[in-house]
Amino acid sequence: MENCVFCKIMAGEIPSQTVYEDDEMVIFRDAAPIAPVHLLCVPREHFAHLDEMDDRRAALLGRMFLKIAALQNQLGLEGGYRLVINQGENAGQTVQHLHIHILGGKTLPWG
Amino acid sequence: MENCVFCKIMAGEIPSQTVYEDDEMVIFRDAAPIAPVHLLCVPREHFAHLDEMDDRRAALLGRMFLKIAALQNQLGLEGGYRLVINQGENAGQTVQHLHIHILGGKTLPWG
Repeated sequence: MENCVFCKIMAGEIPSQTVYEDDEMVIFRDAAPIAPVHLLCVPREHFAHLDEMDDRRAALLGRMFLKIAALQNQLGLEGGYRLVINQGENAGQTVQHLHIHILGGKTLPWG
Repeated sequence: MENCVFCKIMAGEIPSQTVYEDDEMVIFRDAAPIAPVHLLCVPREHFAHLDEMDDRRAALLGRMFLKIAALQNQLGLEGGYRLVINQGENAGQTVQHLHIHILGGKTLPWG
């Protein structure tokens, strides 16, 4: 998708610190981290919102969570981690390409 | 699972404010809300952690996200929402039964 920063990162047009990639998804460091470990898991396919999903995309999302869990120690998430999907303005979704925030490396605040 | 508060809620042994249920999942209000809308989407099947998932459970998780998105207006999530999975101690996971926090109804803090 033209003008999507995540599509440009995945195309190699914008540099990123990528820690994992396969045919379906990429995991790279958030450029504005809020925790010692702050990664983004991004599907290669461009869509912005969960309400644009069909069964196929929902299955892909499930595999993204499965992959994050499989990589947890490699990603530095020992001791626990938080996964966040922000949707829309109230949540502060800044990039209109669906992504899972992966947060860890410290006790995370709640509430 | 004996002694699991979410299993007891789903079995009707502990009262809850349920807003949606089907054969696979239940959505009810969090007992300690941190936002005007604070719901939990819980699979009927008991497991605690994403690293206990296989392909079947990953597909179920995908369908939970699909369902939340389909219900977003009905759940009062106009204007945006945040979905959170806490895993382990650093994230403050208090119930050892996988669940998705659904947060909305206000501008949500970040960082």
